[in-house]
Amino acid sequence: MKIYGKNVAYERLMSDERIHKIYLSNKFRDQNILSLINKKNISPVYLNNHELDKMCKGLHQGIIIEVEDIKTYSFEEVIPNLNNETLIVILDHLEDPHNFGAIIRSSEAFGVDAIIIPNDRSVDITSTVVKTSAGTIDKMKIIKVPNINNAIKKLKDYGYWIVGTDMDGVDYTTIDYKTKIAIVIGNEGKGISKLVSKNCDYIAKIPMIGTVNSLNASVACGIFLSEISNSRRSHD
Amino acid sequence: MKIYGKNVAYERLMSDERIHKIYLSNKFRDQNILSLINKKNISPVYLNNHELDKMCKGLHQGIIIEVEDIKTYSFEEVIPNLNNETLIVILDHLEDPHNFGAIIRSSEAFGVDAIIIPNDRSVDITSTVVKTSAGTIDKMKIIKVPNINNAIKKLKDYGYWIVGTDMDGVDYTTIDYKTKIAIVIGNEGKGISKLVSKNCDYIAKIPMIGTVNSLNASVACGIFLSEISNSRRSHD
Repeated sequence: MKIYGKNVAYERLMSDERIHKIYLSNKFRDQNILSLINKKNISPVYLNNHELDKMCKGLHQGIIIEVEDIKTYSFEEVIPNLNNETLIVILDHLEDPHNFGAIIRSSEAFGVDAIIIPNDRSVDITSTVVKTSAGTIDKMKIIKVPNINNAIKKLKDYGYWIVGTDMDGVDYTTIDYKTKIAIVIGNEGKGISKLVSKNCDYIAKIPMIGTVNSLNASVACGIFLSEISNSRRSHD
Repeated sequence: MKIYGKNVAYERLMSDERIHKIYLSNKFRDQNILSLINKKNISPVYLNNHELDKMCKGLHQGIIIEVEDIKTYSFEEVIPNLNNETLIVILDHLEDPHNFGAIIRSSEAFGVDAIIIPNDRSVDITSTVVKTSAGTIDKMKIIKVPNINNAIKKLKDYGYWIVGTDMDGVDYTTIDYKTKIAIVIGNEGKGISKLVSKNCDYIAKIPMIGTVNSLNASVACGIFLSEISNSRRSHD
């Protein structure tokens, strides 16, 4: 995976994580970063800005770093080993990397056991996701599945209750979360898909009082996770 | 204010909101947008891409639109007219426009009466904020103040309880929110400033169980607002 930009590069160079390769603009002059590269004994590959532009989609600021891909898991590697009040987050074709990163961060904070994303038509683990997750992505198991609905069916076989999040549903504070729970967060524009919605045991809504009545996907996810966390604590 | 990018331009052109001026790349070919411009009887100013690049910081995709600035308010225009269980959000030098936009969106959803931001060293109302707010910014009163601490003191004079959000504090679910409340959300990196923290009546934390234990600012704000909303409903 390629990550880029001075801040991201600086953080990576300050960490102990492995770096495969560094591509630098031949106009790159940031002395802090250059001395860190020097300390690590890495010989950067010098390219012109046009060549760097072709390597990534965002603002690289003259530095692109090739790093280890984030490890992802299969369903079978993770789910059969989980027990008791486990908590899974399913992202039904989320698109925004800021949302994905923030959801990883909230999931880590509230003890989510794994996040399930589909292989296709979904945000992948990009450098923006890594950055927005604020260092939590290495602590969270990301499961990639070919089909969300199959994953939901298999989760049911393992005893999970599936809670879809939508505007039409029961008040999310009335659900008993003291069991194996998987919550489904929908796409930013379209929400959760019809078939996924059908496969859910509950559809839950966050009651709102404004006129627009919509929440950012990562905010909605955080509110659900905090409620589940609070209700599990209060029943202990 | 300048807004840019095809999606943002398309939404603005579909709305009835006033447009001062449209700058187009002379290579711009999006027929949907061009016909909308035509329908509105606007004569765009044609520039080359280099000139457009100089006008904005982000990816303009060949179109920049000059629109009315978002109206902001003074403390005195808004606060003295609020009564009963009002709810204010104070942003203590937030930096990220995605967070600001998502906070505006959550605030609208949970009935916040106004958001207070400082004039300086704070994210301003940029096109990213407008976009992330998903159409809610026109429904939310944004108050700009020269000094957050003075605003907090004046809010106390109006009977507000000030709740700061931080990692060290009382459990946020134990506070009585059935009164005039202003919650303070801190900067993404530094949290709320020391002086602001001192001026708060409560410091409240969201209990977490992970190892990193931090939340995105807009997620934390959403969790607070949902809790306040839930507790006010349940006491009615």
